[in-house]
Amino acid sequence: MTNIVVEKKVLNENARIAEELREQFHASNVLVVNLISSPGSGKTRLLERTLELLPAGTKAAVLTGDIQTDADATRLARFGYPVRQITTGGTCHLDASMIRRHLEGWSLDELDILFIENVGNLVCPSSYDLGEEAKIVLLSVPEGEEKPLKYPSIFFKSKLVLLTKTDLLPYVPFNLETARTNVHKSNPDAEIVELSCQTGDGLARWIEWLQARMAVCV
Amino acid sequence: MTNIVVEKKVLNENARIAEELREQFHASNVLVVNLISSPGSGKTRLLERTLELLPAGTKAAVLTGDIQTDADATRLARFGYPVRQITTGGTCHLDASMIRRHLEGWSLDELDILFIENVGNLVCPSSYDLGEEAKIVLLSVPEGEEKPLKYPSIFFKSKLVLLTKTDLLPYVPFNLETARTNVHKSNPDAEIVELSCQTGDGLARWIEWLQARMAVCV
Repeated sequence: MTNIVVEKKVLNENARIAEELREQFHASNVLVVNLISSPGSGKTRLLERTLELLPAGTKAAVLTGDIQTDADATRLARFGYPVRQITTGGTCHLDASMIRRHLEGWSLDELDILFIENVGNLVCPSSYDLGEEAKIVLLSVPEGEEKPLKYPSIFFKSKLVLLTKTDLLPYVPFNLETARTNVHKSNPDAEIVELSCQTGDGLARWIEWLQARMAVCV
Repeated sequence: MTNIVVEKKVLNENARIAEELREQFHASNVLVVNLISSPGSGKTRLLERTLELLPAGTKAAVLTGDIQTDADATRLARFGYPVRQITTGGTCHLDASMIRRHLEGWSLDELDILFIENVGNLVCPSSYDLGEEAKIVLLSVPEGEEKPLKYPSIFFKSKLVLLTKTDLLPYVPFNLETARTNVHKSNPDAEIVELSCQTGDGLARWIEWLQARMAVCV
């Protein structure tokens, strides 16, 4: 019982900071997306391909979260955009205060888009608003098509569902139609984009999705 | 700060119940294993194959955890062993009190082995002792070989690491040698078994691992 009360307080404090962040993001016309998935669904790989494919002149930045290591920041820094690692040291999700702290010294006014790569976890990050415009959940084909039913919260809260690693469809039991149905059972309004960072299939649609939202933010 | 204090209390209470469970498991000579992994690493599929392959006469039972749905219990009940679903309704891990509650009415003395399938999450379940003899972590090949470095706690606490879905090795960038090195960086004592539930490769070694430990429990 006490645990629930404390949890509520933590979430209320998080919501307050997230709201402040959201106001700053709106005032600076920066699109902020929060990428969430299981470990190994391909968040970092998607960001690598995205940073390659963004139209020239796009001003992007990345905050990437992990429990340990700064491996992802190193991978992503190669593309010439500002990247910062948030190492949570055990915490299973990013929270709004971590985002605020790691934005220090960056001028939001100079950004078009900020990617936040959450800790690999399909459960806990869904409870923490980071002030983002959209949560985006990745579900990789080898994970199985029933995941939207087993982890409904994050699918319910996400504007976009990315079905990733579609190049593996011939090798795993995964029915795309069933997956789409399951996504819409958890969230009838979710958009779905299927893609493969290996073959490049679907990446154009993903970039278009981002561009359409960046245009609204200008 | 208050949050940390409450968390400690919760974990202390969990440890107390887990210790009681452990004593009961020892007194009844039942081997208890706690299977932990990301969503979609193949825990339920492994249990299906395991229940098929256990030597005739083995008295096994399964507690299977999920946030929502009883799909896994339905899948596993087909094999004729007692199976109970623990639906956590949002909680990101199983805890010892859930195990105690769901064991009610089962006679531990009549079991050789109890499989606990945790909620799909590579982070939070590592903090909750369930009274098990061994935590076992699954890492599926499509997730990538760097996961033991990014999620060190669960690899550190596991006696056995199962590298699953090895049938996908030809199609994904995953170096087995690097994966083994990374596992041993997090836990030099971890045993590693590579397997594929699709082809059956490695399953005999897994069953042998269980049988060796069941023999000790008798």
